[in-house]
Amino acid sequence: MTQARHFLDLDEATRAEVEQLVMRAREHKRGVPEADRLRRGRLVVAMFFEPSTRTAMSFAVATTRLGAQWLDFNAGSSSLSKGESIEDTMRTLRAIGADAIVVRHAAGGYPHEMARHFAGSIINAGDGCHAHPTQGILDALTLIEEFETLEDRHLVIAGDINHSRVARSSARAAWLLGASVTLCGPPLLLPATTPAWGFAALETNLDAVLPSADALMLLRIQNERGTGAELPPRGDLAFGYGLDERRMALLAPHAIVMHPGPVNRGVEIAQQFVTHERSRIERQVNNGVFARMAVLEACLERSG
Amino acid sequence: MTQARHFLDLDEATRAEVEQLVMRAREHKRGVPEADRLRRGRLVVAMFFEPSTRTAMSFAVATTRLGAQWLDFNAGSSSLSKGESIEDTMRTLRAIGADAIVVRHAAGGYPHEMARHFAGSIINAGDGCHAHPTQGILDALTLIEEFETLEDRHLVIAGDINHSRVARSSARAAWLLGASVTLCGPPLLLPATTPAWGFAALETNLDAVLPSADALMLLRIQNERGTGAELPPRGDLAFGYGLDERRMALLAPHAIVMHPGPVNRGVEIAQQFVTHERSRIERQVNNGVFARMAVLEACLERSG
Amino acid sequence: MTQARHFLDLDEATRAEVEQLVMRAREHKRGVPEADRLRRGRLVVAMFFEPSTRTAMSFAVATTRLGAQWLDFNAGSSSLSKGESIEDTMRTLRAIGADAIVVRHAAGGYPHEMARHFAGSIINAGDGCHAHPTQGILDALTLIEEFETLEDRHLVIAGDINHSRVARSSARAAWLLGASVTLCGPPLLLPATTPAWGFAALETNLDAVLPSADALMLLRIQNERGTGAELPPRGDLAFGYGLDERRMALLAPHAIVMHPGPVNRGVEIAQQFVTHERSRIERQVNNGVFARMAVLEACLERSG
Repeated sequence: MTQARHFLDLDEATRAEVEQLVMRAREHKRGVPEADRLRRGRLVVAMFFEPSTRTAMSFAVATTRLGAQWLDFNAGSSSLSKGESIEDTMRTLRAIGADAIVVRHAAGGYPHEMARHFAGSIINAGDGCHAHPTQGILDALTLIEEFETLEDRHLVIAGDINHSRVARSSARAAWLLGASVTLCGPPLLLPATTPAWGFAALETNLDAVLPSADALMLLRIQNERGTGAELPPRGDLAFGYGLDERRMALLAPHAIVMHPGPVNRGVEIAQQFVTHERSRIERQVNNGVFARMAVLEACLERSG
Repeated sequence: MTQARHFLDLDEATRAEVEQLVMRAREHKRGVPEADRLRRGRLVVAMFFEPSTRTAMSFAVATTRLGAQWLDFNAGSSSLSKGESIEDTMRTLRAIGADAIVVRHAAGGYPHEMARHFAGSIINAGDGCHAHPTQGILDALTLIEEFETLEDRHLVIAGDINHSRVARSSARAAWLLGASVTLCGPPLLLPATTPAWGFAALETNLDAVLPSADALMLLRIQNERGTGAELPPRGDLAFGYGLDERRMALLAPHAIVMHPGPVNRGVEIAQQFVTHERSRIERQVNNGVFARMAVLEACLERSG
Repeated sequence: MTQARHFLDLDEATRAEVEQLVMRAREHKRGVPEADRLRRGRLVVAMFFEPSTRTAMSFAVATTRLGAQWLDFNAGSSSLSKGESIEDTMRTLRAIGADAIVVRHAAGGYPHEMARHFAGSIINAGDGCHAHPTQGILDALTLIEEFETLEDRHLVIAGDINHSRVARSSARAAWLLGASVTLCGPPLLLPATTPAWGFAALETNLDAVLPSADALMLLRIQNERGTGAELPPRGDLAFGYGLDERRMALLAPHAIVMHPGPVNRGVEIAQQFVTHERSRIERQVNNGVFARMAVLEACLERSG
């Protein structure tokens, strides 16, 4: 990753690479002097095929703070919809001057396909159920701010694991930094075997793992992905893997609560815990800007 | 208002506050030196739930001229539409770095609800039939440019008063600066009693008040608001409260014509009077940029 | 054109004017020093009534590189759709501070109608089947880069000539610079007589003109325009006027291939030739930014 100009997922990322991005994000959070800004006139193009608020705005703010230009491709009404190939669109955007493209798409692997044809940097802002690597970095930043080191720390991620690109990226980032990770959900929404992930324990009983958790990350329960047939009813999922009063009491007093947002209040998390003193949900959003500054900067410096 | 960081309506505004904004807007119109610009990196987020051209662009230009960044939230396809609560959206936008939010919404009071949860500034760009306070400031600026003082001046606002957020805000601003105000429309489209407004005369006969008017403001006749059942046909409204040749002759020679736009030519105003030498419609639009600069500046300076 | 503040088509353009724009675009391509940028705060408004990717983004990048502001009018949900007249919209945009408007519209002549009412500059980014004059300049730039002079050079444009605004503008620009131009297509898609164009030969047999071509420009085959009744099937058009292996062999070894994009791969051009060493398609896109910088600059300098 530190060698590559793209930022597609964390599958091949090393501990050193994640640490470097987290460290740089913390520097940005303390305020980067003007001298550290990118050289003038870098262009970052947004291609959001799925609607997004927080991620798109977070990238936009990060881009502008670095002194680069953010330009919306309007993916919905674009030349891609006139039948232009991905290859030709990538060549066109490069010829227009794009240094990086931030992409979100419902199909897993779409950013990787773009990367095969784009001479600048492709930055994945979420592809289907596959990856959301800047979320991984911002969650790692949030955990590091809390615990300074993740050795001997335990992250529990609860909910629909199989359809969550957040679970995959945030679990991997935390694991790379030394945390043990448990993925917790109903059997049909968990990976069949651990090997595919390699670094995480699987668990179906949330109550059983809460006492040992240093951080509990609830996942959004959504109907946007999956066929629906395999999904348990929303209410069952909330009942089994949501955070209520009783479960809050099972957590250690120092444990923090995280959620990638947007939150369905009263579904994944009971009303009173969303802005609770142990919730880090707002800080995650805030950290997203600094994590994306670090990622954009690393990519743009390498894209020549 | 000078003490508050929000700009929601003019209900509590004092004469001194409106005068200060109008004075500052005039300074901006003469050109603000670079030294007066906001400190670097302020972020203004646009949340337009109703389409808008002139108001949205006017705010965008005002924001950029102040050296701040304008970012579109794309309200239509936002996380709010995924069921996120207003409170969480406000916290998220603040965490991303938003200093101010400019909002237009079909529901009266929506910006006030946002203000309860947003730690920066909420600026109302029109909420239902309730208020459009920057329109009030720009109209006050237009009147002050014309008459220097509004003492002993008479503003007549004609048309569908009850459904007009412009009427409410512009009437109040002019009245605060010393003008007498008459609201003129058919009985069903006028407030039932004066007390609700407090400061304006009510009149159903436009011809009767034209001779004493220093400024006549025609309101847009639209079908976007109201249930429809209570509205007289568009033609009747134009006939009774539109500006034609005969009514123009009833106005004093020095009286000016205003309209918040967009104009339905030949409906509220006869073709030949839209760009007439006594029309101030274009100047109102131009003044909108300077009025919004003053409002944004006042809010952003107070939002820390 | 050098005297006018608008840029609507190339019908009245002189050779000197086109040469000057091409020369200036080449200077921009080599990099313009900061001192040459426009004076601060110029505002360029985008009005794209038809979706566009490459042209809109190209103009956006060109505008920003000149130090001006690019603002999207959101033509689809604008006040024009609330029934405001073109004249009033133009006056409004001017009053808000617009220095130039870049417009694309399905109706030929729409930018000319806007120009009658706008006190700044109207720049045509494509109007129906009529004109696309910045495409003409960028294609002229591409040809000049290749051949230095167009005297004794032969440009062949192939496909649906009658519905192509590109054909009209690029043919005229190349002809003004000294090239001979042949427009090649099926009888029903060619102008009935040459006089309307004046400067181009008409031909129905593509194979017959390929050996003498220095540059072959293929046109996009699209269903967006025309009534459909007059159009031959897409396959027939591709068969008769597309570039395949056999036709590539008919071209002289030095001849280049052009296409305004987006390309339907395998329709107008066989897969292997899109990014062929003799293809200039990507360079055309790249040149678009510099051509538009030259056009914007010329217009903005004249719009006061």
